[in-house]
Amino acid sequence: MTHEPAARPGTTVSELSESQLLEAFLPGATTRGAQVLTGPGDDCAVVATPGGRVVVTTDTLTEGQDFLAVWPSGRHTTGADLGRKCAAQNLADVASMGAVPTAIVVSLTLPGDTPVQWVTDFATGLSRAFEELGASECALVGGDLGRGTELSITATAMGRCELPPVLRAGATAGGVLVHTGVLGRAAAGLAALLSPVPGPWDGVPEELREQLTTAQLRPRPPVTAGLALARAGATAMLDVSDGLLRDAGRLARASGLVVDLDPAALETAAETLEPAARAVGADPWQWVLTGGEDHGLLAVLPVDSPLPPGARAIGSCAPTAPARTAPGVVDEEGTAAHEQHRAGPAVTIAGRSPRQWFGRDVVEGWDHFEP
Amino acid sequence: MTHEPAARPGTTVSELSESQLLEAFLPGATTRGAQVLTGPGDDCAVVATPGGRVVVTTDTLTEGQDFLAVWPSGRHTTGADLGRKCAAQNLADVASMGAVPTAIVVSLTLPGDTPVQWVTDFATGLSRAFEELGASECALVGGDLGRGTELSITATAMGRCELPPVLRAGATAGGVLVHTGVLGRAAAGLAALLSPVPGPWDGVPEELREQLTTAQLRPRPPVTAGLALARAGATAMLDVSDGLLRDAGRLARASGLVVDLDPAALETAAETLEPAARAVGADPWQWVLTGGEDHGLLAVLPVDSPLPPGARAIGSCAPTAPARTAPGVVDEEGTAAHEQHRAGPAVTIAGRSPRQWFGRDVVEGWDHFEP
Repeated sequence: MTHEPAARPGTTVSELSESQLLEAFLPGATTRGAQVLTGPGDDCAVVATPGGRVVVTTDTLTEGQDFLAVWPSGRHTTGADLGRKCAAQNLADVASMGAVPTAIVVSLTLPGDTPVQWVTDFATGLSRAFEELGASECALVGGDLGRGTELSITATAMGRCELPPVLRAGATAGGVLVHTGVLGRAAAGLAALLSPVPGPWDGVPEELREQLTTAQLRPRPPVTAGLALARAGATAMLDVSDGLLRDAGRLARASGLVVDLDPAALETAAETLEPAARAVGADPWQWVLTGGEDHGLLAVLPVDSPLPPGARAIGSCAPTAPARTAPGVVDEEGTAAHEQHRAGPAVTIAGRSPRQWFGRDVVEGWDHFEP
Repeated sequence: MTHEPAARPGTTVSELSESQLLEAFLPGATTRGAQVLTGPGDDCAVVATPGGRVVVTTDTLTEGQDFLAVWPSGRHTTGADLGRKCAAQNLADVASMGAVPTAIVVSLTLPGDTPVQWVTDFATGLSRAFEELGASECALVGGDLGRGTELSITATAMGRCELPPVLRAGATAGGVLVHTGVLGRAAAGLAALLSPVPGPWDGVPEELREQLTTAQLRPRPPVTAGLALARAGATAMLDVSDGLLRDAGRLARASGLVVDLDPAALETAAETLEPAARAVGADPWQWVLTGGEDHGLLAVLPVDSPLPPGARAIGSCAPTAPARTAPGVVDEEGTAAHEQHRAGPAVTIAGRSPRQWFGRDVVEGWDHFEP
């Protein structure tokens, strides 16, 4: 076999068989790794799981829902963008357990007119993300290729644990809330992508615009910080994928406490977004506190734990105010959260409720946001 | 919380938030299992992997591609059908490694007008499949719910290995080819589903028609046979998902030998399809030998190994005829397969090529089928 390119330029997936498409896909993908005992090609892959347990997470990116093929700003979402994003969001979930990513399987559902080059770019983007995010043990070990009317990508990532996995529920009052990664940049980038050209974003320096859209299209979560935070003694951790307020609320509820954010520690994040926010009439604090898809890590460390590199203390954990309703109506499922909610918000900012702090209602109906 | 039903009858997913949809989904799903250390609700699930390794596989079912919402026969594909099928095809892959299914994650991409009841039915179908297929250790441990224009389901299943995983490539000449499960029934069922009513299938007894369409919509792979075959000493194994000839060819090529099928051993399978085939002018042997989606297991056992219950010897493994081209042009990648192909087919039927045996070309261009 002469290993000719699988397809000439301009070929679409509808012109290839599944095995030809696989030939366009696999050469660019990292399929070997220290933990990969059997890679792609059999009914299953076989992955080593030292320690006798594995963490697993899955995420889907669907065109129109999670990204646009062409954004109002004119930017096209490339295969490489989606390879990186799909890796990033799954690896961040693995990292947030304090685990080390070892393997990923990817299912691509592709419209027939998708260029084969897109598929090759996707594989390369995926593998580049492994490198750039420090997921050096991670490999693509399997997948599925199919057709559909809508471009959709589902990735499932696994990771090995050298320490007990860090759940959301382990934080205790008195712990220090720490964060690594960026805040609000992906949300600002989304706003830029969704803004037609010409438009208000024209007033934002191109370099900043580019940085922000890249934060949205190719997020770079601090994957190696997951294990570092676990080693530093993190008692609770999660990936900030739906905004700091919402995800801090999840951690607070799962752990049964109140998280208080320190705005002084978040000021730098807001300041870097200030020029863009001013130009487009947005509130940089709304991006920082409620913007999704940054995929930073939020953890609770015991007081006096040394902070791993890149981690920053941004708040504290306090006991929940006692519920004012009779204990009889509180069960261990959802009701506890409802009752806590009545007793006060799960997340405060400098001791005030988000509504008080902002001086207005904030996005997504903070008072009724989902746990 | 009073645990009211998540939605009144007729509610569609567009009317619910993701967490409400999850409430409709999770109660019907089996989310606990012996190997589940942390189930749904955190960034990752945590699954025990005794033995220090795990097998993993992923498959996508997309509407229009892998199933029709409403078939030409008038049959609707229900959520329960897809829950079962998605479980079955993934668990069969796990079983074909000689492994025991332990965990599955499922991502559902749903059009907004999907009834919430569909989602509940899907969860129930998935869990019923675990029970019915003997996957008693398996649980749903995580997933993702999203919207899209097209209904699409991606499941990733994992399994524990108490023996070294059985790959496709381990068969040796002299081994006995064995099969467990059904052959051709899913393909016949597909033909029935694709045939408009009234039509030729009206002449087939309703009970048989129902059996066959059920084989297609709710396949019942012999999941527990995977470990039994591994224990019996299987040196190679795979899931017959693309037809016996094609999948036997994959095993033969991966192992570097020729598989000869014994038609006498397959006669019962063809005979049970005969009434349907006669009524609709089809060839029952084509269903048996080339029909996909049965998800039976095909394995190679050493001669004189006791056959596990349900397994049936259907052929033998012989050395490959020497290639007639110079060895210099053969490399270890694809070329070896091409050269083998020139030296003769990887699968024969009673010593003859499929074309000779059928007396005509068979579906999917047998002479050029993909490895």
